[in-house]
Amino acid sequence: MSEQGKPTVTVLGLGRMGTPIAAAFLSAGYSTTVWNRTPEKADALVAQGAIRAVTVAEAVAASPLVIVPLLDYNAVRQALEPATTALPGRVLVNLANGAPEQARELAAWAAGHGADYLDGAMMALPQTVATPEGFFLYSGSRKAFVTYRTELEVMAASHYFGVDPGLAEIHDLALLGTGYAALTGFLHAAAVLDAVGTTPAEFAPLAARWLNGIAQFLPELAREAGSGRYEGGVSTVDLNRVGVDNLIHISRANGIDTGVHEPLKALLDRRSADGHGKDSFSSVFELLRPQDAPQR
Amino acid sequence: MSEQGKPTVTVLGLGRMGTPIAAAFLSAGYSTTVWNRTPEKADALVAQGAIRAVTVAEAVAASPLVIVPLLDYNAVRQALEPATTALPGRVLVNLANGAPEQARELAAWAAGHGADYLDGAMMALPQTVATPEGFFLYSGSRKAFVTYRTELEVMAASHYFGVDPGLAEIHDLALLGTGYAALTGFLHAAAVLDAVGTTPAEFAPLAARWLNGIAQFLPELAREAGSGRYEGGVSTVDLNRVGVDNLIHISRANGIDTGVHEPLKALLDRRSADGHGKDSFSSVFELLRPQDAPQR
Repeated sequence: MSEQGKPTVTVLGLGRMGTPIAAAFLSAGYSTTVWNRTPEKADALVAQGAIRAVTVAEAVAASPLVIVPLLDYNAVRQALEPATTALPGRVLVNLANGAPEQARELAAWAAGHGADYLDGAMMALPQTVATPEGFFLYSGSRKAFVTYRTELEVMAASHYFGVDPGLAEIHDLALLGTGYAALTGFLHAAAVLDAVGTTPAEFAPLAARWLNGIAQFLPELAREAGSGRYEGGVSTVDLNRVGVDNLIHISRANGIDTGVHEPLKALLDRRSADGHGKDSFSSVFELLRPQDAPQR
Repeated sequence: MSEQGKPTVTVLGLGRMGTPIAAAFLSAGYSTTVWNRTPEKADALVAQGAIRAVTVAEAVAASPLVIVPLLDYNAVRQALEPATTALPGRVLVNLANGAPEQARELAAWAAGHGADYLDGAMMALPQTVATPEGFFLYSGSRKAFVTYRTELEVMAASHYFGVDPGLAEIHDLALLGTGYAALTGFLHAAAVLDAVGTTPAEFAPLAARWLNGIAQFLPELAREAGSGRYEGGVSTVDLNRVGVDNLIHISRANGIDTGVHEPLKALLDRRSADGHGKDSFSSVFELLRPQDAPQR
């Protein structure tokens, strides 16, 4: 039974993320109903006090708040199809990964069945659920977010971006893109160093330290990009053109593909050719913005 | 005067980095001789106990350890030319940024004048000199590094990579490359989000948090890349191909240039086409390594 004043919570899907999520609600004193296609996966949670639902419909009926940490949108849709009669009045929190369109489609489907819909994206690993390291992104029903914010924060720090259900996935993709770029840069650099006798394992701690420093630098870049003012910085387009040229040169000299850094080289070269060589590095943002964005 | 047992130290060049470096040696109890083209720049340091040398030759003659935090190799060479007679027996620590060839040339020049040479790269900002956040990379004379390691650590944590004087610059470029990639990914993602109403300033703290998480993940990637074993990971090539495709799709849908992520897409597509779709994401390292590297 939930502690006084706490809504009951249902978790559909006890995979890598669903299991620690259900455990977090139990630890936080919530009456937690769980369902999984393979019911045995709930055994440990039931031992900790979870209620095992035999059918999805039973699980959805058990709580006003239904959290769905399944793998993808198809899995969510398949799991919920047999439970549509239980959906009216429920708040559905879908945590699957996918494209913004999929989030919008599922939101429309949920609305058609009388459920309020929140789309979520989990920026967390199983071990960082309910820790300060994980965070979740949300979009869709503002009412649902406000009503259940306390419950959402049981899983992770929660960020809400607006009523368009696709926004959480867009922000997810933006973070993934930042991470992909960093990891690609790291693997490229590791290949350069491997060629001169430094192993990836020796390089990793230095690169991690450097990336942590880079992370601290993002607010300053964001201030420049947000204002469109790039004058007076120390790290100029022209200074970094030299750095990128040296990097491409050293890659080539060691037989490493230079493609990873060619897009940045092209951006810096264009800025310089446009007369912005003394602007801050971050001014390449102006070339990345949509062509039809307002001039600043 | 240096505290007992401490060598005297000379710092040539009191710019953004030279000034905090000289201050760090004074704070650590070293007799510190300073020289700057514009002598007035030394006033504050002299007030703290530094010895002002009028000529470079006088500065070089004052200490067995001569640290040169000037901007680039040309500046170093120009500053030292009038002091060649004072160089024999000195250890020259050059902290300028540049290409590996420049480090090798300067090392040869120093050897020709009887000086031992260490090339250094400062992975630090003025405010992170002599703090746990900064770190310096070294290559060149192993004897010089071992002899003066205590003094080098006054400036920052010190990493030595080998006798080839170019290695510090290569490692510097590898770190820069990792950072460039991350910053480019961030600015691209910020452009995507700007198009849907989230400002760069709103995005920056989330991106910083995500990058800090990515940094923690590097040792695992390095283990995979170092061993050439990529089986059994959760984050596979095929899974991330979907992510990168979604990212490129959402960029295009918002009028944002997709070029930044095309190199990674090409790498993932090639791995998948080669039958490695179930391998870990990090296996793109195999495509980045030199063509003539040993098969694993």
